[in-house]
Amino acid sequence: MGSTEKSVRVELGDRSYDIRIAEGLLDRIDGAFDAAGIGNHLFVVSNPRVWEMFGEGLLSRLESTRTAVPILIGDGERHKTLDTVESVYAQLLEHEADRSSTVVAVGGGVTGDIAGFAAATYMRGLPWVQIPTTLLAQVDSSVGGKTGVNFRMGKNLLGAFHQPASVCIDPSTLSSLDDRQYRSGLYEVVKYSLIRSRAFFEYLSERLPALLERDPQTVGETIAWSCRIKAEVVSADELEHGLRRILNLGHTFGHALEAATGYAAFTHGEAVGQGMKAAAALSRDLKMIDSMDAASIGELIDAVGDRPDADAVDFDQLWDCMTTDKKRAGGRLRFTLLNAVGGAAVVEEPSKETVRKAWNSAVAASHPSAAS
Amino acid sequence: MGSTEKSVRVELGDRSYDIRIAEGLLDRIDGAFDAAGIGNHLFVVSNPRVWEMFGEGLLSRLESTRTAVPILIGDGERHKTLDTVESVYAQLLEHEADRSSTVVAVGGGVTGDIAGFAAATYMRGLPWVQIPTTLLAQVDSSVGGKTGVNFRMGKNLLGAFHQPASVCIDPSTLSSLDDRQYRSGLYEVVKYSLIRSRAFFEYLSERLPALLERDPQTVGETIAWSCRIKAEVVSADELEHGLRRILNLGHTFGHALEAATGYAAFTHGEAVGQGMKAAAALSRDLKMIDSMDAASIGELIDAVGDRPDADAVDFDQLWDCMTTDKKRAGGRLRFTLLNAVGGAAVVEEPSKETVRKAWNSAVAASHPSAAS
Repeated sequence: MGSTEKSVRVELGDRSYDIRIAEGLLDRIDGAFDAAGIGNHLFVVSNPRVWEMFGEGLLSRLESTRTAVPILIGDGERHKTLDTVESVYAQLLEHEADRSSTVVAVGGGVTGDIAGFAAATYMRGLPWVQIPTTLLAQVDSSVGGKTGVNFRMGKNLLGAFHQPASVCIDPSTLSSLDDRQYRSGLYEVVKYSLIRSRAFFEYLSERLPALLERDPQTVGETIAWSCRIKAEVVSADELEHGLRRILNLGHTFGHALEAATGYAAFTHGEAVGQGMKAAAALSRDLKMIDSMDAASIGELIDAVGDRPDADAVDFDQLWDCMTTDKKRAGGRLRFTLLNAVGGAAVVEEPSKETVRKAWNSAVAASHPSAAS
Repeated sequence: MGSTEKSVRVELGDRSYDIRIAEGLLDRIDGAFDAAGIGNHLFVVSNPRVWEMFGEGLLSRLESTRTAVPILIGDGERHKTLDTVESVYAQLLEHEADRSSTVVAVGGGVTGDIAGFAAATYMRGLPWVQIPTTLLAQVDSSVGGKTGVNFRMGKNLLGAFHQPASVCIDPSTLSSLDDRQYRSGLYEVVKYSLIRSRAFFEYLSERLPALLERDPQTVGETIAWSCRIKAEVVSADELEHGLRRILNLGHTFGHALEAATGYAAFTHGEAVGQGMKAAAALSRDLKMIDSMDAASIGELIDAVGDRPDADAVDFDQLWDCMTTDKKRAGGRLRFTLLNAVGGAAVVEEPSKETVRKAWNSAVAASHPSAAS
């Protein structure tokens, strides 16, 4: 086990922490907690599906040296509400959580966001640990300390930055994902390569078949590389004042696509995948990258797998979604684009017609068949 | 105006900010905001009583160069709930607050706690400004970045540390306080002298009559001195890991007294006043200070004014409240006591009989008449 264990340091001064990535890490989670200096009173927040798979094993490991109270919450975006957070507060209070307690989030991004927000705001902040069990959570939400919930029409409108004390990633938990969920996470992986590392892009282009087959060595290496890139970006810009925006590659298009299709047709990852294709086309049209790079980016994205059809989506509706979103984000419509494979740049207020042309060219180049 | 304006810097690295204290500051609040680099989109959270007194003048000043949306919330501890915070969120959303918006809290501690918590958690943190209008808020809650609300039986159970961008104190707002509210704030002022500065203690002993008459020069000096002491303590221990506990002088007794009397008989300040007398007696009984110091501390506290009678409170009930509180705070019953006039030390787990004796001696020495 030792040879394949990886560790990524997230440098944030006195809020620094390590991400440990190892196949089978859940089977020795007690030792991982010891090494990270995690306290003895745990509140383990999870959802019923994940808990059914990993709960019993995890609890028996944790309870060998600690107390652990499970708190189960609903899974899925519709549960990401203040009401759910309040139910976590109530259980923390009922079981007398105090400042010596630690919240442990076990699940995907929704579970982590809710548990992290509860931890951030209970007694002005309890320490917390993330054990992400989806690929998306492992490479994205587990790094950076963003926590939060939706409020009315506002996605992630409420929240706090609250860095975890430790992140423990066991890639074997990915067995809980079906193929579509797994591939959805891979689009975010491709994103990291595009914004920051041509070497990682080349690694992914070459190793994609092994990655799609979930070869453990390749999966572990890919998660670590993604976390390393996100950690670099977050360390340089913890509170999202600037650099962190490069993480939004594909997200201006992607969020609009999700909104325009009622958050039903596309997974978040798929929408980002389609959005990154459009961003690459827009980068090409703005002469930031050449056609060959744009084409090889499109090929890697498409090789991740089939996505739902974006043909039927009306561009004017997409544009409305983008400009509504923009108003909320401080007034300017921003796109994270590419000036190289491995280099991102933020472009503000491109014309609607330029954006339309890029979107249409990306959709036409996709020829996707419908996802299951 | 220049000669009496005072400024206290709260040093917290990139979260540092200034407290400005000046008679008439509200009449030139626009300039104060300019100087502090406050943005142009304001959401001003206040309560109806304070708003009636200062709202119109404040708005007309602010709106000369900025937009300002008033958000009124209920005043009083019973409004310090998640529901009230949610109503603030709803109005921020309705009026399209974004990351370029600033929350401004105008009122006492409750208003500041709620507005600050909403600011801390809306879009993962909006900048905020405090304009405290009670003496207690001016010397206490405006320094240190604690925000939060109550949850079920837990006072301040939910919250976040969120430092303001600026604090603007206009002592002329104290005209809104009746005598009892004003004196309640003075107990916390006495606390700062006791834990940190014999010179301030001597200043207060000498200037108390002028302070009780609300002489502007004395009031301004007293607020500044108090803020300076709190700022020093908070700078050294932002997240309350150690030193900040010395601010709890009188609070272990005081909180228990408030709880045991149903939060009805004593104001917070009065309970802390009675608690400080007991803490001084306990310090004396533990040979940490001599009898003469204990007596002069008691004299200053009593000179602040009449407090409700603590004779009728059953010590065993107080003790139960203290030990319940302690369990929640991490397991040990701690008292902030004095080893000098101007020097605090934390003592853990004194025996119940020692504490009883100190309490009884402090109550017997009080001879208070009933407060109005």
